[in-house]
Amino acid sequence: MSKGSSQERALHMFDSTLRDGAQAEGISFSVPDKLKIVEALDDMGIQYIEAGNPGSNPKELDFFAEAAGLELKNSILTGFGSTRRRNIPVEEDKNVQSLLKASTPAVAIFGKSWDFHVTEVLQASLDENLNMIRDTLGFFKERGKEVIFDAEHFYDGYKHNPEYALATLSAAVEGGAGVLCLCDTNGGAFPDEIYEVTALVKKQFAGNPHIEIGIHCHNDGGMAVANTMMAVDAGATHVQGTLNGLGERCGNANLCTIIPNLQLKKGFQCIFPDQLQKLTQIAGYASEIANVKLNERDPYVGKSAFAHKGGMHIDGVSKASKSFEHVDPAEVGNERRFLMSEVSGRSNILSRIQSVVPSVKKDSPETEGIIQRLKELEHMGYQFESAESSFKLLVHKHLGKYQPFFKLGYFKILGEQPRSEKASSTAMIKLAVDNREEITAADGEGPVHALDKALRKALEIFYPELKKVHLTDYKVRVLDTKSATASKVRVLIESTDGDDSWTTVGVSPDIIEASWIALVDSIEHKLLKDMEKKMRVFM
Amino acid sequence: MSKGSSQERALHMFDSTLRDGAQAEGISFSVPDKLKIVEALDDMGIQYIEAGNPGSNPKELDFFAEAAGLELKNSILTGFGSTRRRNIPVEEDKNVQSLLKASTPAVAIFGKSWDFHVTEVLQASLDENLNMIRDTLGFFKERGKEVIFDAEHFYDGYKHNPEYALATLSAAVEGGAGVLCLCDTNGGAFPDEIYEVTALVKKQFAGNPHIEIGIHCHNDGGMAVANTMMAVDAGATHVQGTLNGLGERCGNANLCTIIPNLQLKKGFQCIFPDQLQKLTQIAGYASEIANVKLNERDPYVGKSAFAHKGGMHIDGVSKASKSFEHVDPAEVGNERRFLMSEVSGRSNILSRIQSVVPSVKKDSPETEGIIQRLKELEHMGYQFESAESSFKLLVHKHLGKYQPFFKLGYFKILGEQPRSEKASSTAMIKLAVDNREEITAADGEGPVHALDKALRKALEIFYPELKKVHLTDYKVRVLDTKSATASKVRVLIESTDGDDSWTTVGVSPDIIEASWIALVDSIEHKLLKDMEKKMRVFM
Repeated sequence: MSKGSSQERALHMFDSTLRDGAQAEGISFSVPDKLKIVEALDDMGIQYIEAGNPGSNPKELDFFAEAAGLELKNSILTGFGSTRRRNIPVEEDKNVQSLLKASTPAVAIFGKSWDFHVTEVLQASLDENLNMIRDTLGFFKERGKEVIFDAEHFYDGYKHNPEYALATLSAAVEGGAGVLCLCDTNGGAFPDEIYEVTALVKKQFAGNPHIEIGIHCHNDGGMAVANTMMAVDAGATHVQGTLNGLGERCGNANLCTIIPNLQLKKGFQCIFPDQLQKLTQIAGYASEIANVKLNERDPYVGKSAFAHKGGMHIDGVSKASKSFEHVDPAEVGNERRFLMSEVSGRSNILSRIQSVVPSVKKDSPETEGIIQRLKELEHMGYQFESAESSFKLLVHKHLGKYQPFFKLGYFKILGEQPRSEKASSTAMIKLAVDNREEITAADGEGPVHALDKALRKALEIFYPELKKVHLTDYKVRVLDTKSATASKVRVLIESTDGDDSWTTVGVSPDIIEASWIALVDSIEHKLLKDMEKKMRVFM
Repeated sequence: MSKGSSQERALHMFDSTLRDGAQAEGISFSVPDKLKIVEALDDMGIQYIEAGNPGSNPKELDFFAEAAGLELKNSILTGFGSTRRRNIPVEEDKNVQSLLKASTPAVAIFGKSWDFHVTEVLQASLDENLNMIRDTLGFFKERGKEVIFDAEHFYDGYKHNPEYALATLSAAVEGGAGVLCLCDTNGGAFPDEIYEVTALVKKQFAGNPHIEIGIHCHNDGGMAVANTMMAVDAGATHVQGTLNGLGERCGNANLCTIIPNLQLKKGFQCIFPDQLQKLTQIAGYASEIANVKLNERDPYVGKSAFAHKGGMHIDGVSKASKSFEHVDPAEVGNERRFLMSEVSGRSNILSRIQSVVPSVKKDSPETEGIIQRLKELEHMGYQFESAESSFKLLVHKHLGKYQPFFKLGYFKILGEQPRSEKASSTAMIKLAVDNREEITAADGEGPVHALDKALRKALEIFYPELKKVHLTDYKVRVLDTKSATASKVRVLIESTDGDDSWTTVGVSPDIIEASWIALVDSIEHKLLKDMEKKMRVFM
């Protein structure tokens, strides 16, 4: 398998987040959403932005009208549509008319390359399909558009009828296509097939220097990224994909994986280097706009992508980062994290203690004490790898540096059915700060919500800064489920004050108690953080 | 690139969910969790189950002691450990001793194949590393174990020093390894590299018919599945991975993708065919136990894997399913879903309704009503896949065939801190059966435990058969975690009466209410079941 030298070839990236990505389950972009993503892709230096299918619904044309006002610095806005319907003149096809109205400088036209699709799905003759491709591309070419041909089901089509699949590409060239993009539409192809077929097509059209070969992969076999890499090895220079791999069914090839694979390891420039260093941030931004959670295990940009848990891995990375990391996380704007856990080693725990209190040494008696306490807590079901703030408080408490910010008198929570309309639980709480007592109550949806509200209500009198704090995430894990409703639960709470966010943990067989522990840690973390900030100002 | 015919070669699947999978961020398996996963893997027909690293922490040995009592039908339980430390006799190495104590019939020993790791991380001489491999494998081989050598960082090592990388494999063979498993530990290798290097190793050891070549990939470049497929093409017959791709950083090669890729498309038998048809269910079960959400876009088993949204795709699939599906979803126990269509999954729902009440027909008015109600409930967060009993009750209620077994007057639960020694919550309940009222109370660990006890105490007076019922599992999943402590929760309760076991579900923003719904369903299921049994006797 021979590879073209990357230095000889430029690659053109083609993003379809707003078109194929929008066909993912649960995704629906508004016009402002789409404009934001176009701007981010333009900043990155993506060559083509396929921003919608104007024929599919009228909202799309509103978007293209607005997008025409954007002054893109780097990207070419691209509309998407199909070849004309069978047996009608191209200019009478409604989808073709809509696509023309979108007024984009480039168009991507998909057509059928699998004979079975032509006869069974389109119910057209094989010749008529070639005419449809030729006519439709020609229509846009004559009107000065850059034309990309998406050869739908090319790899499956090639397997069943190679002559016909190649004939559809020739028809596209006759119509004026500049790019022949080979699509694995069903996403089931294997890397070796992709390599062989792409190399063959590349060779077939090698005589025409104006024709580029492109690749468009889906992830139904879990191989979209690898298939894309193999197509590039075989000579494809136009690379289609979506941010975070959004797309129909299992998604499209993930550009947030493909770009660093090509740019850091194969020497191609896909996007501006300073943008590559922001890739983690861009992926997060795109997933926020799409309103889907970014997969923590996503390569390069996921929260866990450089998270080390096994003791030997942590030890190795501490000695030499390349020992357990394929790239430096900073190159994609991500960061290395050492997770606390029973499988992580002592040197890791020490460095975590030192990040809280730098003066602690490896053989200080405190170190042994903290490690001992940590192990006891983990045995009880605590987990600190995602609850940094509870760990920090634990260290402070153990070093005797810690003064509680309030003292609980008691709380009582009443949950009842039949419930009132707006609340099913009521909490009463009595607490004291510097010997000043406060008693109050609140109601809410369930016992923890009511308790959370009552606790804040009482404390905000003494600590008004707590008004800025709110909870952003609440997770419950039942440990050892065999004890059924008396099982231990672990509660993780994520809080924010607008500037920072932090996570705390509590464990108990009683979900109220577990939540209480995590809630108190969250509030104490905030107050301790603010106190430390004040002390630094005075020092 | 030539491929070995699949018919000539058997593959051996090696699952590391409980070892490498447990090194994933946020994953912590209890001993009962691990036993459940071992049983599921054994049912599937996975050849090797790597179930833990006995040297890493003492909890692991408890698990192996319990696991020894399982009578596995198909799988070989495998312990994991490293080569001995440098410059000590193998029998004095603590990790080696722990692994021996685990008493598994097979062991997987990892050793360094990258010279840089030997000198920089282990700080051993290159020769001493070869001794460490030979000694450690030999130690277990002499004690009758089947020995697998995990050649850590083999592909990176081979790139830097091919002679040394191969020398580590030869040392493993001298030690008695039956499998040389080549690991892409950092997960950054490309499919063509994997193919070339694996083919070369395969050739190197082709003279020894007792040596199998294995593959172990990580997903840091997003190519773990494809890399595994390429290694199999190159002659690897031992395939390592994890359920749902759980694993350190970006995860391991996902067996739930690899197995159908190999079995449906390459003609290998990896697991029992009837188990492949349950793969979606198995993936869901594993993710429930790990308490992580299964990625909806996961190939084959994800909720969206066969979900069609684009109008043209729906049209195409309706005309011919292979037009936009690489395999038939039924082959992996998944189902086709048309997202934009009113008729989604209708025939599937109908067959589930008929399993409860066979007389219901496709166009009965009840069918429409039940489907409507089901959709509403699923929209609220209900999930009936693992709560058949709640689904059955829903059908009964809708057909008007159902008489409630009791009527709730009210319940009130008091949770408080400071808590008493044995209980933190008290529940009062008043209910009526046939106009006879009962009021009682109970205390317990947390509100749900107290409520569960009080409810049973009151009902057992009327239905003594409930004394045999107890809860065996209690799971809580926070849906939409962003609403923090007011987020909706889904509670799943598993109950048994010694003869059968059944699962029920409840959803509410209040965990007490969600648990109440599931508890009531559980009790009504039991009473309904007993009543049906009596009726059959009289009929």
